[in-house]
Amino acid sequence: VAQPNGSGPGALLQVMLDGRARTRSELAELTGLARSTIAARIDLLLASGLVRAAGSATSTGGRPPTRIEFNPLAAIVLAMDLGATHASVAITDLNATVLAIRHLSLMIADGPEPVLDRCLATAAELLATDKPWASASLAGIGIGVPGPVEHSTGRPVNPPIMPGWNRFDIPGYVQRVFDVPVLVDNDVNVLALGEHAVSWSSTRDLLFVKVATGIGAGIIAGGELQRGTTGSAGDMGHVQVPYSRDSPRPAGDERDLEAIASGTAIAAELRALGLDVPDSAAVVELVRSGHPEAIMTTRQAGREVGEILATVVNMLNPSVIVIGGSIARAGEHLLAGIREVVYRRSIPLATQHLAIVQSQAGDAAGALGAAIMVIRHVLTETSIEGMLARLTD
Amino acid sequence: VAQPNGSGPGALLQVMLDGRARTRSELAELTGLARSTIAARIDLLLASGLVRAAGSATSTGGRPPTRIEFNPLAAIVLAMDLGATHASVAITDLNATVLAIRHLSLMIADGPEPVLDRCLATAAELLATDKPWASASLAGIGIGVPGPVEHSTGRPVNPPIMPGWNRFDIPGYVQRVFDVPVLVDNDVNVLALGEHAVSWSSTRDLLFVKVATGIGAGIIAGGELQRGTTGSAGDMGHVQVPYSRDSPRPAGDERDLEAIASGTAIAAELRALGLDVPDSAAVVELVRSGHPEAIMTTRQAGREVGEILATVVNMLNPSVIVIGGSIARAGEHLLAGIREVVYRRSIPLATQHLAIVQSQAGDAAGALGAAIMVIRHVLTETSIEGMLARLTD
Repeated sequence: VAQPNGSGPGALLQVMLDGRARTRSELAELTGLARSTIAARIDLLLASGLVRAAGSATSTGGRPPTRIEFNPLAAIVLAMDLGATHASVAITDLNATVLAIRHLSLMIADGPEPVLDRCLATAAELLATDKPWASASLAGIGIGVPGPVEHSTGRPVNPPIMPGWNRFDIPGYVQRVFDVPVLVDNDVNVLALGEHAVSWSSTRDLLFVKVATGIGAGIIAGGELQRGTTGSAGDMGHVQVPYSRDSPRPAGDERDLEAIASGTAIAAELRALGLDVPDSAAVVELVRSGHPEAIMTTRQAGREVGEILATVVNMLNPSVIVIGGSIARAGEHLLAGIREVVYRRSIPLATQHLAIVQSQAGDAAGALGAAIMVIRHVLTETSIEGMLARLTD
Repeated sequence: VAQPNGSGPGALLQVMLDGRARTRSELAELTGLARSTIAARIDLLLASGLVRAAGSATSTGGRPPTRIEFNPLAAIVLAMDLGATHASVAITDLNATVLAIRHLSLMIADGPEPVLDRCLATAAELLATDKPWASASLAGIGIGVPGPVEHSTGRPVNPPIMPGWNRFDIPGYVQRVFDVPVLVDNDVNVLALGEHAVSWSSTRDLLFVKVATGIGAGIIAGGELQRGTTGSAGDMGHVQVPYSRDSPRPAGDERDLEAIASGTAIAAELRALGLDVPDSAAVVELVRSGHPEAIMTTRQAGREVGEILATVVNMLNPSVIVIGGSIARAGEHLLAGIREVVYRRSIPLATQHLAIVQSQAGDAAGALGAAIMVIRHVLTETSIEGMLARLTD
């Protein structure tokens, strides 16, 4: 079955992913494939459930020919979006439509086994329904975690806020319960995919920046999520920042962006002013309550983020920067600081059509992005051919 | 003829671009296309010259079947690489093999018409040969220029060192002589394509940085040249740089990287030290002669470039940074300054497999990149189908 060159049943399915129903004749016409080839491939795809009959086309006479269409419910996807203190667990179809979702409170710092067990139990609960989709096979599992991940193995790499997770084999652990492909990536990459799909699918160049306990970015360039050579692309939190006029400190001393502009850093600055602000969550509360120092410090954090983004805008020339994370959601102050610097510092050609906006995708964006990551993986030509080959074994 | 879906003769040619010779039966087998379809499409491709007979395959009996292969000499490409004071004009085949090349001395500041006239005259001379390729049709023209370009129209946009070229319709002017597709891009983008093809074709993430009279970068991420939303991606020279401990100056004052670290900036610094250094070219000479202040200033310029590259490395995680341009070619000093800062400032995960190297691609890299830009454009499925449609009109 496997065909390396774009003309196998996998390629035929690619054509059908646009969602239009077509007759076998129309497909033969469209692809130039022989009728007998089309017939055999459609039989295979029908057997797999990846396509389905979609009512009848009007015919010039005789028995009306059946129209065939992609079946997004051929399989379902399990998506988990893990944060520092929460998780979302969702089931989607192959169009990334959310079929069921649940939000949990949990501590990532409890370590991989209790956290994953809880998410897997939640998944089992979601699947224990009599809705028709619950009987569909599971195509794969996508997981976003709040730390750096070696995407090829699905293992976190020295994640600062995930004690016990370093080099933990997430796919291996999850596959003891569900023996399907398991893809893991950091939360900003899955959020970038989610934001892109929900609100900005027509743009090819998008930057997603999360400002919360930490700071990170997900980069979509040329329409593709860019992970870089070793998967560390978008590590904005560890960019070194020299002290500038806006934050005068001893010359020659430097820190990374996260140490200056994250929720944790803002909390520390406010504590230095004598306020009782233990952490990032307290910053959010204080900003929401309209506290002047908290607002001022958050806006200054936005300026620091903007300094780095100005460089990124000159280099990558995105059409939209989406700012998310708890600090961004606390109000317009962070965004105002970012806009102030980026529009002043970047070249006009790069900012002329640049939108800098707050994330609108909501609580489900991470889970949605994790699902999209899986769907892109399982609906590639090669994966489909592999799936069909297993089916005909 | 035109097929939107990857199964037309354009798609068939894509399969053949790997250079292997195959029989019609092998192609039918490989693509799943009906024999009659293959036969018709090969006839069309043979008529266009894009494929050719390649000797005979061994047969099980009877007349041996003809093997068919891609013909890189089906058409030729004209490539022009324009610099501030020089130009290269080259002819390549459809594999980007250079068939003929000439290097000219000229002043880009003389304006578009005299410069392009001279290049076009040189192209005509190169084509006036009795070599067999000279009779092939011209597939397109690629032009690299030392300034920002609106890629979609081929017009320079406020190019600082190209007086008279602002908004000049380069494709329109060139097409009065050669009525073929004309693609224009800035020199760093074509150099990035050239370096990638010559020395680093197996990497998907490469950054090319040119440090000469000005400073610019070409970005290849995920295997594709990234131009960004409005085509200004890679504009590293205009990234704002705060003064740091290494270059103490009035606090609050900022300039862009080009004003601090370009050949022009180094010349100005050396003049401030009382030396007679009129321009970038004089810097190169002085550094080559081993002048200590020139070397020190060049190394410091490398550190300034490195500060920005450290951010870019964290964000894009490339596997190689190629440093080119006259200042880089003057010795290892610029590179040493860049390495010093990038390896110290970027996160270990991003630098662990990062190579920072001097450009090795030589004088032809720009022309080669310009040719590759054209070939990628004309050998897309859609362009091929258009070409074949015109052929059968």
